[in-house]
Amino acid sequence: MKHTVTFLPDNVSVIVEDNTNLFKAVKAAGVYVLSSCGGKGNCGKCKVVIKTGTVEGGKTRSFLSAEEAERDYVLACHSRVKSDLTVEIPQESRMQAKHKIATGAKTEEILKLMKQAGGCLESRIHRIYLELPPPTIDDNIADFERVRRALDRAGFSAANLHMNYMMLSKLSRSLREADWKVTVSVFTVTEVLEVLDIFPGNATKTRFGAAVDIGTTTIVVYLVDMTNGHIIGTASTYNSQVKCGDDVISRIVYATERSGLKELQGLVVNNINTLLADLAEKHKIAPGMIDYIVVAGNTTMTHLFYGIDPEHIREEPYIPAATFFPPIRGKSVGLQLSPQAIIYSMPNVASYVGGDITAGVLVSQVHKQDAVSLFIDIGTNGEMVLGNKEWLVTAACSAGPAFEGSGIKFGMRAMEGAIEEVEIDPKTYEVNYRVIGDSKPIGICGSGMIDILAEMYLNNVIDQKGKIREEIGSKRIRRGESGLEFVVAWRVESAINKEIVITEVDLDNLIRAKAAIYAGFATLVSHMGLTFDSIEKLYIAGGFGRYIDVERAIAIGMLPDLPVEKFQFLGNTSIMGAYYGLLCDRLRHEAEEIAHKMTYIELSVSRSFMDEYMSALFLPHTNINAFPTIKKEMARRNRLG
Amino acid sequence: MKHTVTFLPDNVSVIVEDNTNLFKAVKAAGVYVLSSCGGKGNCGKCKVVIKTGTVEGGKTRSFLSAEEAERDYVLACHSRVKSDLTVEIPQESRMQAKHKIATGAKTEEILKLMKQAGGCLESRIHRIYLELPPPTIDDNIADFERVRRALDRAGFSAANLHMNYMMLSKLSRSLREADWKVTVSVFTVTEVLEVLDIFPGNATKTRFGAAVDIGTTTIVVYLVDMTNGHIIGTASTYNSQVKCGDDVISRIVYATERSGLKELQGLVVNNINTLLADLAEKHKIAPGMIDYIVVAGNTTMTHLFYGIDPEHIREEPYIPAATFFPPIRGKSVGLQLSPQAIIYSMPNVASYVGGDITAGVLVSQVHKQDAVSLFIDIGTNGEMVLGNKEWLVTAACSAGPAFEGSGIKFGMRAMEGAIEEVEIDPKTYEVNYRVIGDSKPIGICGSGMIDILAEMYLNNVIDQKGKIREEIGSKRIRRGESGLEFVVAWRVESAINKEIVITEVDLDNLIRAKAAIYAGFATLVSHMGLTFDSIEKLYIAGGFGRYIDVERAIAIGMLPDLPVEKFQFLGNTSIMGAYYGLLCDRLRHEAEEIAHKMTYIELSVSRSFMDEYMSALFLPHTNINAFPTIKKEMARRNRLG
Repeated sequence: MKHTVTFLPDNVSVIVEDNTNLFKAVKAAGVYVLSSCGGKGNCGKCKVVIKTGTVEGGKTRSFLSAEEAERDYVLACHSRVKSDLTVEIPQESRMQAKHKIATGAKTEEILKLMKQAGGCLESRIHRIYLELPPPTIDDNIADFERVRRALDRAGFSAANLHMNYMMLSKLSRSLREADWKVTVSVFTVTEVLEVLDIFPGNATKTRFGAAVDIGTTTIVVYLVDMTNGHIIGTASTYNSQVKCGDDVISRIVYATERSGLKELQGLVVNNINTLLADLAEKHKIAPGMIDYIVVAGNTTMTHLFYGIDPEHIREEPYIPAATFFPPIRGKSVGLQLSPQAIIYSMPNVASYVGGDITAGVLVSQVHKQDAVSLFIDIGTNGEMVLGNKEWLVTAACSAGPAFEGSGIKFGMRAMEGAIEEVEIDPKTYEVNYRVIGDSKPIGICGSGMIDILAEMYLNNVIDQKGKIREEIGSKRIRRGESGLEFVVAWRVESAINKEIVITEVDLDNLIRAKAAIYAGFATLVSHMGLTFDSIEKLYIAGGFGRYIDVERAIAIGMLPDLPVEKFQFLGNTSIMGAYYGLLCDRLRHEAEEIAHKMTYIELSVSRSFMDEYMSALFLPHTNINAFPTIKKEMARRNRLG
Repeated sequence: MKHTVTFLPDNVSVIVEDNTNLFKAVKAAGVYVLSSCGGKGNCGKCKVVIKTGTVEGGKTRSFLSAEEAERDYVLACHSRVKSDLTVEIPQESRMQAKHKIATGAKTEEILKLMKQAGGCLESRIHRIYLELPPPTIDDNIADFERVRRALDRAGFSAANLHMNYMMLSKLSRSLREADWKVTVSVFTVTEVLEVLDIFPGNATKTRFGAAVDIGTTTIVVYLVDMTNGHIIGTASTYNSQVKCGDDVISRIVYATERSGLKELQGLVVNNINTLLADLAEKHKIAPGMIDYIVVAGNTTMTHLFYGIDPEHIREEPYIPAATFFPPIRGKSVGLQLSPQAIIYSMPNVASYVGGDITAGVLVSQVHKQDAVSLFIDIGTNGEMVLGNKEWLVTAACSAGPAFEGSGIKFGMRAMEGAIEEVEIDPKTYEVNYRVIGDSKPIGICGSGMIDILAEMYLNNVIDQKGKIREEIGSKRIRRGESGLEFVVAWRVESAINKEIVITEVDLDNLIRAKAAIYAGFATLVSHMGLTFDSIEKLYIAGGFGRYIDVERAIAIGMLPDLPVEKFQFLGNTSIMGAYYGLLCDRLRHEAEEIAHKMTYIELSVSRSFMDEYMSALFLPHTNINAFPTIKKEMARRNRLG
């Protein structure tokens, strides 16, 4: 028996077998529904509303409120289709397309930074225009040798010249059709100079490349004019893999399932193809002229992009297949560019410190400074690097995706409708908030959560353990289905016709997340026998990082209590580092040195980290003396109060 | 309208459209008919007999005798099918499968020669057995890095370690499934150490390779145990490309036609696949264990094997696409071996001096001797190398395929039924001959032609210009359709029910061929300011060469008049050189040095060559003083006569 399932508001239908899992029907229809776990049934995000028809299951009480259950909400992944259906995907379960991903592309600014970092416009791929003397009976060396000789004369060391099969096959024709005036694209691997392509005439002025940041959530592309470093255009999209799981762990699990790896690779490659094709069309560039791509991503994303099984990344002792990936042809992974286009991946360090972090260090220049600085990319994993020009140590704390909305009842990513700033009145406990897009709120994003936690703590709405003080007697405090909760936005204010609350469970999850990040810092610092005082600069990278209010992040004990001027936001250093590596081979090489130099510390088995983590499960910290600013502020407020 | 064409004696039928060229029908049916020109209509070899039915055309008088025409012979390539047909392919137009191609494979002998040449059992591909420590939380480097570290510790310089996409994809699984005890197959390209394959456990004792001689006419394969150099088995076959043309020029022409190149590549690759599969099965070896192949062939054969257009080889200024071919994966050309198997081609020197000649020099050791020696491979082209340890010069004279039977009325290759030795009685002019296989003759092969020419000249049946002296009054001399001819075998003696004759046209063609070879020698020698006396050794290679009677070859002026002890037959040096290169990387490298060192002299535009050639168009030579032995012999015979 088959049923037709129609999804609103897109009005897309799909025909499925009786008893099909509704989450699978969603995927089959190609519509989007939020999900952190990729349909495993344990995140509770894929709420949909059954408008007509019957499903079996789905009314899972641990994830749905009584009110939602009454309003025909079900969890898609817990429901089985039993008849023709009309299913609405409510606003809170939809990906908001309006959110602009920070691409941060200002050519002048980035070029300047790159040059300050010692960069130049000497890419790994060179184009050389050659006017070859046509062969004669007295000069009758093979075509290949003729190219070699010309490259040698042009100053390229072509003793070990290589061409792959495809190039060799077309060599004779290419040279003669262009009347021996050709542009040769070459690439150096160790001592071997490889001819990538041969273009008729002088094609040295039409060279394009792309820098790609493959994030777990978002993908950003820069299309770059390789002759002058100008960013011709930028584009970004959500990583379509999101529908197979929110975080790297659920992606890895998905990848180990039958054809999951191939599917995940296809999704990200398709994203990049689409972004590049759109940019190329918009800027009237033949995609075939793009012949060099540098990608930066975390280790799992890099494996998935290359189509390499990341299975062992998630199991102790956490081993990636590779950290340094060989340059390969774009077509090997399915990229639709020049057939000879080369992909280079910024080098990874370990299973949880990837090419995005190597790129970040390259941009931050931590590795070149006398003073010790700390680089952190706050996301699902807080990856951090501590060091100076002598040494670099790195670690990743699995903070979990709480600040990205996962495990938080009204958590969401920083997109339209998200509460991003919050203030609580110390006396009335009334709440002021700001919503992205200035619309009615549908949830709370990471910076909003930090604000809420900080404000609730500083105003004594919660205690040091994150427990709500019911005794303060605010009407915003009430007992919900999962215990005490605090109403951030009343039903009338919200876009979803219900109160937006923060629960004690949410607070607990946020405190665990911030504790993991802080414990990571503390472990690295003590590992090197240092104290936080010795840190000269603390660089914060990542799309999420740029919206953090540093003082409030210190107040909750997520960031160490250092003077605000020591903090510096760097934006998306992953794409910037990829851009550096694309344009300047010296900096690309420097990134490899950085990756080699970094000592990775596995926190998940570190006793020191566990101790630090336990101590950090308080607001701001068990040892309040580590947070003198907050201690002083609390004392001030208590005096006032 | 369609017709059924049945070919006898194989009794194979094919259905073709009305008006189809009969030669195409032959090819479509997959049966074999002799052809030097590949169906172009200008060699006159593809004679068939129409038993029933009608063809249009085909009775081309310039190629068929009146008698043949009467007996329903037609030239297949000149005939168009007009009805159902029964067509007999007569014996003289059939490839004889019984002829054994000389493979010359005696392990002990060849191994000894290789070692005398400085060879060892250190191939370019190494297998290393590694017992990797399984990863732990304290030793959690990436799988790739673990392999690198182990290779480094095993003494291989793995700073630049490479794996291709396929290897990287299976790396993690391979290591774990083998419980970290693996054998790694590695290959060095310049400074890069490439992992070709990973086998579970210790697989260092099961390594196989193959040496392949790709001749224009025949293909020879050695299957080699790489651990001890033993030749496990040898196999050979005719190059199936023969049906597309006898010589390299007709192959090149064929390759330039639509899909011709692909077809030619497929034919030779299919030949090699079949030979290797048969050998592997016979010796119970999995073809997947063969991971290294070294081929030697002339420049055109190498291009065709790689699928690279040889078009410009045949047009002045005679430019090959490449002389040094990069090592590539066997699967790129369609070889059915280990998917990671590497093919290496012995380096070529120029359009008409190929890897077979480089291999030959390596085997002859011309390049290591103080004294000057001459190496020659007599075939369609007489390729020759003159030199010593200081210098090497090389040239190819387009002798044409006369000695292989082309352009000679009853010419054929050295196969069963070929007259291979001839004596003429000085007084009666009666002929004694020996036939390969001791059967009735169907034609004359190269060594037979040399004998006939020598005997006719020494016994005054022909003059210095090769003109038949009708005045001697032998019944064997008669006027045929193309002028005077000499009957070598009477009709009753032959297997084809007609006289086997040598015509004045044949004699002219043979003199041109021998003149070209001699002129080549003379040009090289005078180019270096030397005389023939300074040549210490003259090495003769090639399957044809081994059957030559040196004294008679001197008598006709094909070889210089040197003492017989200076001549040495080396056999198939192409396959031997490939075998050297397969087993010993030092010798493979030496072959590259040889190829670099050789100075190629283009004879086709050399005035000196033209002069030498004109002078050599006499028997034995215009300057009889250059042939004192023959001068003496003629004087002796004339005194007797």
